[in-house]
Order: sequence, then structure tokens, then C-alpha cells
Amino acid sequence: MQQAIAILDSGVGGLTVAKEVMRQLPQEKIIYFGDTARTPYGPRGAEEVARFTHQIVDYLLQFGPKMIVIACNTATAVALEEIRARVPIPVIGVIHPGARAAIKTTRNQMVGVIGTEGTIRSHAYEQALRQIAPQIEVVSRACPSLVPLVEKGEFRTEHTRHVVEESLRELRLIPMDCLILGCTHYPFLTEVIGEVMGPEVTLISSAEETAREISTILYHKGLLASTGTMPVHQFFCSGDPRMFKSIAQTWLNEQIKVTPVVWRVPNII
Amino acid sequence: MQQAIAILDSGVGGLTVAKEVMRQLPQEKIIYFGDTARTPYGPRGAEEVARFTHQIVDYLLQFGPKMIVIACNTATAVALEEIRARVPIPVIGVIHPGARAAIKTTRNQMVGVIGTEGTIRSHAYEQALRQIAPQIEVVSRACPSLVPLVEKGEFRTEHTRHVVEESLRELRLIPMDCLILGCTHYPFLTEVIGEVMGPEVTLISSAEETAREISTILYHKGLLASTGTMPVHQFFCSGDPRMFKSIAQTWLNEQIKVTPVVWRVPNII
Repeated sequence: MQQAIAILDSGVGGLTVAKEVMRQLPQEKIIYFGDTARTPYGPRGAEEVARFTHQIVDYLLQFGPKMIVIACNTATAVALEEIRARVPIPVIGVIHPGARAAIKTTRNQMVGVIGTEGTIRSHAYEQALRQIAPQIEVVSRACPSLVPLVEKGEFRTEHTRHVVEESLRELRLIPMDCLILGCTHYPFLTEVIGEVMGPEVTLISSAEETAREISTILYHKGLLASTGTMPVHQFFCSGDPRMFKSIAQTWLNEQIKVTPVVWRVPNII
Repeated sequence: MQQAIAILDSGVGGLTVAKEVMRQLPQEKIIYFGDTARTPYGPRGAEEVARFTHQIVDYLLQFGPKMIVIACNTATAVALEEIRARVPIPVIGVIHPGARAAIKTTRNQMVGVIGTEGTIRSHAYEQALRQIAPQIEVVSRACPSLVPLVEKGEFRTEHTRHVVEESLRELRLIPMDCLILGCTHYPFLTEVIGEVMGPEVTLISSAEETAREISTILYHKGLLASTGTMPVHQFFCSGDPRMFKSIAQTWLNEQIKVTPVVWRVPNII
């Protein structure tokens, strides 16, 4: 049986990573877990998000995956290193790939980051950027109103445009030349964010960049799926599967089967 | 003492990788070796190129580097796996990074590759592309006239433009949407190649992409240089250092010291 890449997120955001994996690594099988019952993670405390992440990783490990992808910036910021230390397979987060792409892209050394409160509070992007390129100036802003829009499927409404304009008002005054979409939900809003920021600002999707690093690590570990493999993906979510399925099918542009997961541990929700 | 990234090439081509490492990883120390006495590698047989590559790797290992970068497509095609098998530090080639970038970039699944005779004959790009994304159509063409132009420092002359037009004549008829510059010398000619191919074709520089993969692998191995490190790079070449120094200083836009290396093994040149 083909070993899968296990991808987890607080909800539908990680589907942006899954879609890019399907595009850039069409032979790889994906097992996806969206914690829709407890989304959003952004406003939660670090300890709670870390606990949820460990729990989902344990759930996914039963499928014997070859790699774990924490496709949620908030969870990456608080739990990546811990998970990496305890799990015997490669574990990839979404923060460093985005940071590396920004370092490659920026010419004026001024980079913007938007994310959830949890991600911005953690300063994980500043650390990732500065560790590699200390000369870079980083301007960050939490945009707590954006994830709920995406989880409701509101990608291009008037209301969404208004919320995005409000959220980015201050950032637009700063002469950055690239903006990291530091939350895997944000690529759903790429069009609106791009219009609001203007053509001078390159948007960096951590989803696209993470898919590429998944490819790099699988190659270097000799774990790429062999030529001719036709994967059948699996999707799980902890909440009502109907909204998840509707958003996932629209975004991925294919029919999928979603299995709802009811947590049996009493202290979970 | 800071452990370096060792970069090797047949001549000045690998400087395109070195320059990108300096830009994307400004804290990393580089030790560069250009085998200018035996350039170009492209027309040589696989066995000979592999032997030269092993020899340079042995030379570089005396400096205790943390990583070896084979910044030459011809040498990567014939020697990467062998070197990787015998050296206890990470070894990065330039073919897979370019292939991955093309997979991320292409929308019409038709990718062009230009390189030396050795690289094109090895089918290394086709294999790297097809291993990951079998649906991609690959059109390759050897351009043996380009490396000598770069080694002579002729980047933008009328003659260069004429040679590039001749070399790419057939490829221009094919509706590819990206072209891999499958030789680290070619980024010196990016401007002319871009004009000849037209704006619809995205040029993929294996140099830029390789620097990014170096960053990815160093991060995942916990080998990134620590914040605040100010590197002093070292350059070696096997031929006359004057032309090498002149091209290197222009390309890197900084003053460097070049140490000529005289091979002591009699059967070398």
C-alpha cells in the first residue's frame, strides 16, 4: 500500500497546501485532517493549540504516513519543533518555506507578514527570516477576521473585500515589495488581497512554497512515490462534513469523500 | 571556525549559484572551486567528468565543509549519486532544484531544457521531471556554443545574440511556458535568452533554485550559520586566475581574492 503524506490543519486552510501537493506531486497520496470542530486556532492559547496538534498527529500516525505536514501557521509556530522531536518521520511546517520564498523574492529587504493572532504573537516569521537574513525588515499584522470568512466559504463577496481592506489598511502605507500570506487560509482570498495591496507587492503563498519543500525533502530522503502511482486521497474532519466537503470540492475541483471523526477523548472540545 | 558551503564548477558558471547563496544566505561562508583549466565539461565523456568531479570534491573536503554543492549540471548528471553515496555530508546538485521549480511554474505542462551536450545526453532533466510529474512534456536541446562565450566574458555582444538566436531557433517553435537554463553558465546570458524566447516563456535559473534548496536542507539538518556571522569567502581555480577573477568580480559585484590551484597529480590535465 502506498505511504501517504499526512496533512493537518485547523479547518479548510490546509487544503491550499493539499491542492499544491496534488499539482506539484501528482503521484503522492494525501491523508488530510481538518479540525473543523475547533476552528479557528488563531485566537487560542499556545498550549491549547499545541495539545490539539499533538492529538491530530497521533490520529494520523495510525495510517503509517511517510511525512507529516503541519499545514497551519498557528500550529507550526507553537508545535513544530516538539512534534519533530518526537515523531520518527519528517515533519514539515509552513513558516520556513514562506520565509525562504520571501528572502528569494524581496529586492528592497522589506517584507510584510499577515497571519492569525497566534502566529503573529509568536514572532515565528521574524525569527525564521532574521535567522537566515538579518538585514530584512519585517512588518507583521494579525488579521483575525479573515479565517472565519474562509471557513464560511465567503471568498469574493463585497463584505470580504471590505474586511480585507480594513485588515490591510496600515500595511498598505509601508513600502514592502512582498507580503507573506502567513496563514494557509489566506490563499482562498488571494485575488482580493492582491487587488488591495496592488501590483508592486508580490504575494507569497506558504501553501505553494510548502508543497515545493515537501518535494525537496521527499527527494533527499529517497521517499518520492514511484512513477505511475495513482493515488486515492482521504479526507477527515472533526466537525460537520458538509461545509468542509463543499469548500474542498470547489477548491480542489474534484469529487472527494469526507469521513467525519468524532473525538472519543472527553476533554477534547 | 565557520564551516563553509563548498561549491564546485567546471569554471565560472557556478558563480551564479554562489551569488544567489550570498544573496539568500548572507551569513554562509562559501569555498568555491572553478576548474577553469579543464573547462568546458559539456563535450567531455561521462567517465572523465565524473573523475574530475571526484577529484575536486576530495580537494574541497580538506576544508571540512558542511555541504558540497555540485554547481555544474554536467557533473551533477554524471556524478551526483556517486558523490552522495561516498561523502558523509549533504551533497546538492543543480538538476532537481530546477526541475522542481519548472513543475511549480508550468501551467501548460510543456517544459523546455537547454544544457551542454553531456547534460542533454544524460536525460537527467527528463528523468527528474518525469519521476515527479509524468504528465509533463519535455523538449531538450544541447547548446554547446554558449559556455565558451561565458568563459570569455562575452555576455551581451552582437555575436552572443547571434549565437543564442541560432541555438534556440527550433525551441522557439514549441509552445512551452517555461525553459530551464540547465547549465549554471546560462544565467550570465539571461537577458539575451529572455529576449530571444519572448515574454511568454518563464526562464528557470537552476542557480536561484539551488540556493533555495541549499537553505532548505541546511535548515532541516540544523546546519544554518548562526545570526551575526560575517563570512569571508574563498575562491580557487585550476587555470589562469586573471580571467576568472575579472568575471567573478563583475558578476558578484565585490572584490575577491583568487588562489590558483596547480594539480600535482600528473595525469590530470
